[in-house]
Amino acid sequence: MATPQFSFECQASCSHTQARAGTFHTPHGPVHTPRFMPVGTLANVKTVTPAQLHDAGAQMVLANTYHLHLQPGEDLVAAAGGLHRFMGWDGPILTDSGGFQVFSLSKIRTIAESGVTFRSPRDGRVINMGPEDSIRIQNHLGADVIMAFDECPPYPADREAVEAATDRTYRWLKRCIDAHQRSDQALFGIVQGGVHLDLRRQAAEQLVQLDLPGYAIGGVSVGEPPELIEKIVQATTPLLPLDKPRYLMGVGTYREMAQAIAAGMDLFDCVIPTRLARHGAALVQGERWNLKNQKFRRDLTPLDETCPCYTCQTFTRAYLCHLIHAHELLAYTLLSIHNITELIRFTQAIRKAILQNQFVTQFEKWLEPSTTDA
Amino acid sequence: MATPQFSFECQASCSHTQARAGTFHTPHGPVHTPRFMPVGTLANVKTVTPAQLHDAGAQMVLANTYHLHLQPGEDLVAAAGGLHRFMGWDGPILTDSGGFQVFSLSKIRTIAESGVTFRSPRDGRVINMGPEDSIRIQNHLGADVIMAFDECPPYPADREAVEAATDRTYRWLKRCIDAHQRSDQALFGIVQGGVHLDLRRQAAEQLVQLDLPGYAIGGVSVGEPPELIEKIVQATTPLLPLDKPRYLMGVGTYREMAQAIAAGMDLFDCVIPTRLARHGAALVQGERWNLKNQKFRRDLTPLDETCPCYTCQTFTRAYLCHLIHAHELLAYTLLSIHNITELIRFTQAIRKAILQNQFVTQFEKWLEPSTTDA
Repeated sequence: MATPQFSFECQASCSHTQARAGTFHTPHGPVHTPRFMPVGTLANVKTVTPAQLHDAGAQMVLANTYHLHLQPGEDLVAAAGGLHRFMGWDGPILTDSGGFQVFSLSKIRTIAESGVTFRSPRDGRVINMGPEDSIRIQNHLGADVIMAFDECPPYPADREAVEAATDRTYRWLKRCIDAHQRSDQALFGIVQGGVHLDLRRQAAEQLVQLDLPGYAIGGVSVGEPPELIEKIVQATTPLLPLDKPRYLMGVGTYREMAQAIAAGMDLFDCVIPTRLARHGAALVQGERWNLKNQKFRRDLTPLDETCPCYTCQTFTRAYLCHLIHAHELLAYTLLSIHNITELIRFTQAIRKAILQNQFVTQFEKWLEPSTTDA
Repeated sequence: MATPQFSFECQASCSHTQARAGTFHTPHGPVHTPRFMPVGTLANVKTVTPAQLHDAGAQMVLANTYHLHLQPGEDLVAAAGGLHRFMGWDGPILTDSGGFQVFSLSKIRTIAESGVTFRSPRDGRVINMGPEDSIRIQNHLGADVIMAFDECPPYPADREAVEAATDRTYRWLKRCIDAHQRSDQALFGIVQGGVHLDLRRQAAEQLVQLDLPGYAIGGVSVGEPPELIEKIVQATTPLLPLDKPRYLMGVGTYREMAQAIAAGMDLFDCVIPTRLARHGAALVQGERWNLKNQKFRRDLTPLDETCPCYTCQTFTRAYLCHLIHAHELLAYTLLSIHNITELIRFTQAIRKAILQNQFVTQFEKWLEPSTTDA
């Protein structure tokens, strides 16, 4: 069902792992993988302009169906000419289906085979959202990649509940495929199954039969230990087709990304870079630094002298520390620019290493399992 | 005392008013007047990067001696290579002396001939600041233009109190001149005198005798009615030399600037564009618009289709309205970019009109006195 514009080309594979460097083509340009994707939930990446995102090396950015349905509504976005024009980003965009948010953020009233009925946390109104609704909304929003509406079980959960959610996710996926109206949007399926590797296997095998233009592993990073994420990814990724992009949802730490890339994953998203920024923290060469710390007060070096981002090329650690202590919002912008650049550069460096067949030697330290993570 | 690098050249004068278009030369580049200067109190213009400021057409930006002395301290700024390098702005910078802030923001303990003793509102420590202190701090900060340390009386105030403050401001100015150590910084004197035109006249005449590289009118926009600002500016400006830049402190509405330019003023600063932005408001062709307003919810036109700023070229009113309602900080950045661009463009348009001898005809509506003001 993948149209040529959504083709995935593999440029190189690692000889010691499943890692690969590829390119995924969208109507708004290519995405070179492996790649970290910044999160713009409400049609903006917090505190960062699209021009700054572009300079940070962003290719595909995310937005969220659930949030945009509640505000400002998909009709307005469609009237504006679609999400790209609405948010001023002319590169590729992916919308999450809202499944995860319905289950994690809403006061759920009922889950039925037809869909979910919940109260809007914004204004209390009752909203019905099922697979057809999510796809209709995403068709209106107009992202390049849209995600299937899934049931994302919490962690921990009974095996029976996870199994029921996984089965329902598959039935809902088939309804999403039937509801999907636009050939210029690629619909990705989501592998659920919680921490149960046999359920993950079954879900992956079912999905692959549907020959979708891309596949995601969802329902991870929901509270389970990092080792379990690694196990799920290692067990599930090999079941997904080699000639399609593979997206690990909600994951974006250095180690989690490196491990997942080693297992064969291509795309990642996480709110970490902007969330850390709003807490005055920076990601610097694999570490998290709290820029509020007194030790940065008089530190007149750049945040990371090897980083090409605007923040590192223009300002010192002391200046960032000053802005944070002065409660200046510009601090969040400057740290977000750096943190986004940093995670994109991390995935770019991995891509380059794969192309040069040096992934395992250069990224060895991130490929060892660990629970202490940046 | 003006060195060649601080020369002011007049390119054109209006044939019907005192308005003029000129250029003030600083070590960090020229400032073409009349000109609105954005305010960067704590070594940053709130929510706007230096790159965005540059794109907005900013030439000289302001920072504040009082605030930077309290945090992060002038020693750190000097160690960073001065304010330009510290805040990443390589264009001209002006520092206010801190006089206004000491009197308006601090719990004053004592005012003496030597200076002012007050408690820091930040950490409660007792600080002494007199003319020599302010100049020493400003010499450390390293702005292109530094301001004399003045006593700014409140409004309303007894005539005797204003007279005493005006006299003290003059004595303090002479001490500022003696304390000033750097020939690459221009020290501007400040005309005080409250709403008493005879005191303003006396102060101006005394200052002019000192042959400073520039002159400011201070102590306006402190709560008095706009008509009084106009009277003060109209009475005082003609007393200041034609061959020096004239700066009206703290003023930055359309009407106040147009009136002051007609009287012969050159430079302006005001926190209005960034403060309005943080309240969700935009300056559009002479009006203030509240972008929270429901009428903008579905308005898919640019904020101002004639405006070349990034915000107007990229986004719609509906998008800005959405960001504000979603409490997204990016709204403040985008509105600040527009509002700063708008006030700079207003002064640029006046400059162009003066050069074409069309100031009075083109800006007629702003030259009529009024109390309703944007």
